[in-house]
Amino acid sequence: MDTIKYQLGDDQIPTTWYNLAADLPLLSPALHPGTGEPATVADLVGIMPKELAEQELSLEREIEIPAVVRQIYAQWRPSPLFRARRLEQALDTPARIYYKYEGGSPAGSHKPNTAIAQAFYNKAAGIRRLATETGAGQWGSALSLAGAFFGLEVKVFMVQVSYHQKPYRRALMQTYGATCVPSPSMETAAGRGILAQDPDCPGSLGIATSEAIEVAMNDPFTNYAGGSVLNHVALHQSVIGQEALRQLELAEDYPDIVIGAAGGGSNLAGLAFPFLGRQLRGGARVRVIAAEPVACPSLTRGQIAYDFGDATGLTPLLKMHTLGHSFVPPAIHAGGLRYHGIAPLVSQALQDGLLEARAVPQSRCFEAGLLFARSEGIVPAPESTHAIRVAVDEALRLKAEGRSQAIVFGLSGHGHFDLGAYERHLAGELVDEAYDAESVARSLAELPTVAGS
Amino acid sequence: MDTIKYQLGDDQIPTTWYNLAADLPLLSPALHPGTGEPATVADLVGIMPKELAEQELSLEREIEIPAVVRQIYAQWRPSPLFRARRLEQALDTPARIYYKYEGGSPAGSHKPNTAIAQAFYNKAAGIRRLATETGAGQWGSALSLAGAFFGLEVKVFMVQVSYHQKPYRRALMQTYGATCVPSPSMETAAGRGILAQDPDCPGSLGIATSEAIEVAMNDPFTNYAGGSVLNHVALHQSVIGQEALRQLELAEDYPDIVIGAAGGGSNLAGLAFPFLGRQLRGGARVRVIAAEPVACPSLTRGQIAYDFGDATGLTPLLKMHTLGHSFVPPAIHAGGLRYHGIAPLVSQALQDGLLEARAVPQSRCFEAGLLFARSEGIVPAPESTHAIRVAVDEALRLKAEGRSQAIVFGLSGHGHFDLGAYERHLAGELVDEAYDAESVARSLAELPTVAGS
Repeated sequence: MDTIKYQLGDDQIPTTWYNLAADLPLLSPALHPGTGEPATVADLVGIMPKELAEQELSLEREIEIPAVVRQIYAQWRPSPLFRARRLEQALDTPARIYYKYEGGSPAGSHKPNTAIAQAFYNKAAGIRRLATETGAGQWGSALSLAGAFFGLEVKVFMVQVSYHQKPYRRALMQTYGATCVPSPSMETAAGRGILAQDPDCPGSLGIATSEAIEVAMNDPFTNYAGGSVLNHVALHQSVIGQEALRQLELAEDYPDIVIGAAGGGSNLAGLAFPFLGRQLRGGARVRVIAAEPVACPSLTRGQIAYDFGDATGLTPLLKMHTLGHSFVPPAIHAGGLRYHGIAPLVSQALQDGLLEARAVPQSRCFEAGLLFARSEGIVPAPESTHAIRVAVDEALRLKAEGRSQAIVFGLSGHGHFDLGAYERHLAGELVDEAYDAESVARSLAELPTVAGS
Repeated sequence: MDTIKYQLGDDQIPTTWYNLAADLPLLSPALHPGTGEPATVADLVGIMPKELAEQELSLEREIEIPAVVRQIYAQWRPSPLFRARRLEQALDTPARIYYKYEGGSPAGSHKPNTAIAQAFYNKAAGIRRLATETGAGQWGSALSLAGAFFGLEVKVFMVQVSYHQKPYRRALMQTYGATCVPSPSMETAAGRGILAQDPDCPGSLGIATSEAIEVAMNDPFTNYAGGSVLNHVALHQSVIGQEALRQLELAEDYPDIVIGAAGGGSNLAGLAFPFLGRQLRGGARVRVIAAEPVACPSLTRGQIAYDFGDATGLTPLLKMHTLGHSFVPPAIHAGGLRYHGIAPLVSQALQDGLLEARAVPQSRCFEAGLLFARSEGIVPAPESTHAIRVAVDEALRLKAEGRSQAIVFGLSGHGHFDLGAYERHLAGELVDEAYDAESVARSLAELPTVAGS
């Protein structure tokens, strides 16, 4: 019987998170926007607990995972690594394709890996409520789940276009007891300001982030919880790649290529960073490919600059590939990838030649998603189909070249709340949103100037 | 760290299915409706392959699982057995509550356990297309998945009210490549006949079954595939209980109470029969409770009689608790439980005093489902909430009595396609459909007479 699943026991759930910052040659620090000085723990504790602020700035390689967090992880971790044998057959490729599946978490994606950790530290710090943004709703529902587990209220600003595209995601957050409002909203100054300029604004992750941070800044018992981009989020997601390393040992294989979809960068980072860390410490080299949407291509078309993480300038300045914080991406179904920038750690890895990036159009992603669903059975989230598209393309390239290599990609979540998009794809109604170079140029012209520079 | 998950390795996937018929004192055979004689393999092969017909009539205790089927099972099996520690805390009960979760299968329920097996045998027999009925869509999507894996076309007649309540389930079947039509349809004589009498008929599992069987009878390359009720379906589902037995050994525990939701009976049978078999062979006694909806209470209010499995009389006569094959149950959200009868094996077990039955109203089930989602994180399918309701009630009884007992219930699937129902429940819009005694009386007056008796 050919093995199709590499399953680890609960005793193999990682005991520490892995921090790539410890192994990168150089990382540009986040800056306080007023002073231009590197951000400190004191700058961050207004919106997050001290432990998370320390993790955000940490250069330690390994940080211990609290026992309570590991116990909750055990409900769905270690997550399975699958060998995609039926997909390989469908493609008739000599490639050995593996995927690390995070959709088995109760919220259906990799997001609870950090949501649980963030809720734990916030609860311990006496916080009563968490505010956040969400695109497709994967992060919002993960934080809502974590709030339910730890007895924290959760307030989610959901990007308006996704709020209407994915009503069941909203219902999921409410089922977990959270409140969810479409963003931009009239509840914050940030939202009101944007609606005054553009009453029909479809919203963006950057705008929703501004709203959530504003709510957190105005209430001492409310903190902000970020679903991607931040260093501590990439840190928490490192359980994915650490497990994959052990599972590939069981498979007696090692990847030539590691692929992840990239929006804010947390899933890619979670899967790929432990492999890159090993490489940086003298281990085997892997090609890491970030798959991003053509309509929102921060890595392939963005500028490397200090920019805000949100739309209205409430965050520290982050050095990253950015399309400009005021860019509002087209309404693609992969709402989780509609972000103007990308995690500074991912950005730095690209600059350091540790990874490459590739932009893929929506319709080709859904094609790959459909092929995957029919061969492997799991209906992938629209975000995840970007990784599948690149994995399929690489497998077909290897077929053309007559070479066998090992490909590992991140299947970040299932698409159970996105079947409306599959229905539209099957009906031929899904259009490819073009890259809007003019809007990006306008947005890049508004990049902040760094104080003191 | 308290254990919350009991995980087995792939080598612990059962190698045989367990057949309760071998251990029951007496089981009334299915009858040919024309002759009144016990149905034979020859009677069944018009709509199913010989292997399944033989399994349907088999009295062997153990039947080997084909290697190909076990390999596909390995994608999501052994399914996890969870200790519901957070639910226990929420209820403040001394009860030890476990649940066997089948929602991790690609189609999201226990149904692929039999769909994969049925597709395998049909493919081997040269069949090109499978026709079936579905209520909530769990069975239809499971068979669509199996069809995609084995290269079989799948035609699903979906109960009309569910077709409109659960559009994403329909989209899921289409994503797997199946075709799905609302039932009653104009595509079959059965459907046309019912629409002629009642153009607004909401449909029922019995009606949709008639349509699927009719299609199978009229085409030599099309077979019928049943998602519940039949003996071979209960047989295939026995992997659930067999695994649970081993997992409870790991937990060093044994259930006092086993609970399953009951519509056609396949999930209850799959979980409970291996425990009952052990009991019948001299092992420990367990209380088995079947949880059924107040609106469609075949076990608690039905009559024991020979009746058709479908609405128009195309199946063999089955001896079972029935509300009458012409009964059209109210449009509750647990569409998978809207069936007029129940598996003859479950029916016989009730008559033999091996299990008890309890009817629970929809709103109380959703209440329990919400409590479960917020404490355990998994949003349960409406069908599964019936089992949760009874488990919670038993746990509260044990609390009142100050006793600790072990409860195991079947969490047959997730509710990702049912969040519209949760939204209505949260908005207070969900009404309890009453038991319609008059309609049942009318329907029972139309029970078939058995030829020769």
